[in-house]
Amino acid sequence: MDEKEKIEFLSQYDDFWSHLSREEKEYACRNTEVVSYHPGQNIHSADTRCIGVLFVKSGCLRVYIMSEEGKEVTLYRISPGEVCILSASCVLSEITFDVYVDAEDYSQAVVLNAYAFAKLIENNIYVENFSNKMKAIRFSDVMWTMQQILFFSFDKRLAIFLYEELIKNGPIIRYSHMEIAKYLGSAREVVSRMLKYFENEGIVKVSRKEIEIIDKKKLMDRL
Amino acid sequence: MDEKEKIEFLSQYDDFWSHLSREEKEYACRNTEVVSYHPGQNIHSADTRCIGVLFVKSGCLRVYIMSEEGKEVTLYRISPGEVCILSASCVLSEITFDVYVDAEDYSQAVVLNAYAFAKLIENNIYVENFSNKMKAIRFSDVMWTMQQILFFSFDKRLAIFLYEELIKNGPIIRYSHMEIAKYLGSAREVVSRMLKYFENEGIVKVSRKEIEIIDKKKLMDRL
Repeated sequence: MDEKEKIEFLSQYDDFWSHLSREEKEYACRNTEVVSYHPGQNIHSADTRCIGVLFVKSGCLRVYIMSEEGKEVTLYRISPGEVCILSASCVLSEITFDVYVDAEDYSQAVVLNAYAFAKLIENNIYVENFSNKMKAIRFSDVMWTMQQILFFSFDKRLAIFLYEELIKNGPIIRYSHMEIAKYLGSAREVVSRMLKYFENEGIVKVSRKEIEIIDKKKLMDRL
Repeated sequence: MDEKEKIEFLSQYDDFWSHLSREEKEYACRNTEVVSYHPGQNIHSADTRCIGVLFVKSGCLRVYIMSEEGKEVTLYRISPGEVCILSASCVLSEITFDVYVDAEDYSQAVVLNAYAFAKLIENNIYVENFSNKMKAIRFSDVMWTMQQILFFSFDKRLAIFLYEELIKNGPIIRYSHMEIAKYLGSAREVVSRMLKYFENEGIVKVSRKEIEIIDKKKLMDRL
């Protein structure tokens, strides 16, 4: 990605880019680099150096928390065209918690380093507002997840997950039971048990490698 | 509260007030009123008219979510000098969820109505940023609560609650088991059972009206 392509890419993020002065744009460009991540790679955690803001170009990032015992709860996913703000948590004064960020697929991002981002925030109220707005969006995502976990019974949560996959990628689902469990903040056995139950109800067909949704109507009755 | 007192009070909120023009200050004053709430009164919910931003003057507000079955989970509390932003959710574009806000004690707030707040946001980037910053602070609060609920075993959570009360108000705790359950997003029976367990361990003494912490060291061992 040359300078011109970088500028073209970043100018998509209108809330951020359009409010920078010419000097700030140059400064931002000098302090960004294109980074690639392989599937499963950890990008950010409480223990690693805080890298900065990720403008996601391709792939998918997963943001999650983890208990001391290693239990993971997925908070949200970040798609191309979106921003990963919490990977700059060290320079965000209102953020007092830390999360993990992993690449879920092969992913590319334009990374603006944390120091430069902090400098821009300090001198440009629009950048500060952009940063706070990105947090607010993720606040909404997290509230959605929290309500799912706390209030919905597990059959409903699994049904919602399957239904969303059906809409996005069609009736064949290739996630492992373990991956689904992680996504739903549950355990593999719980997912396997509920899938077996759904299979008995004629909603899905479960094989070793995939889950096939065979009755959309029955699935929707579970939502 | 006359005009002068109102201005004096609002000027505490420096991030907000100091960036308003003279006209905006006048506009804000014209659109605020002092409101009193009695203990237990509902101030905001998904079903009520969205009232606006509350600058809390006295008392304590509780922000929580509720499931369809009526299960409550407290997200955070708001003290004097702080701001209740989610009561203006109808004019906050990044907020896609809704919460309940109740007065916990007798409380007073200076309320800037939602329409006027939206107008100020529209025309003043500093107000927009103030609004987004307030959300970011509550995002951190919610993340803390979420980790408590999802990751900490209940004995630890109850111990933390008792310890915080001990620090704030001394060894006599006058919350009912039901109130503690609501606060911890649990059930009354679970609280009663764990308190009984703590009593057997010599940590607390439980009577009908109050809970007394009798061994601080033992309590701290549970944190």
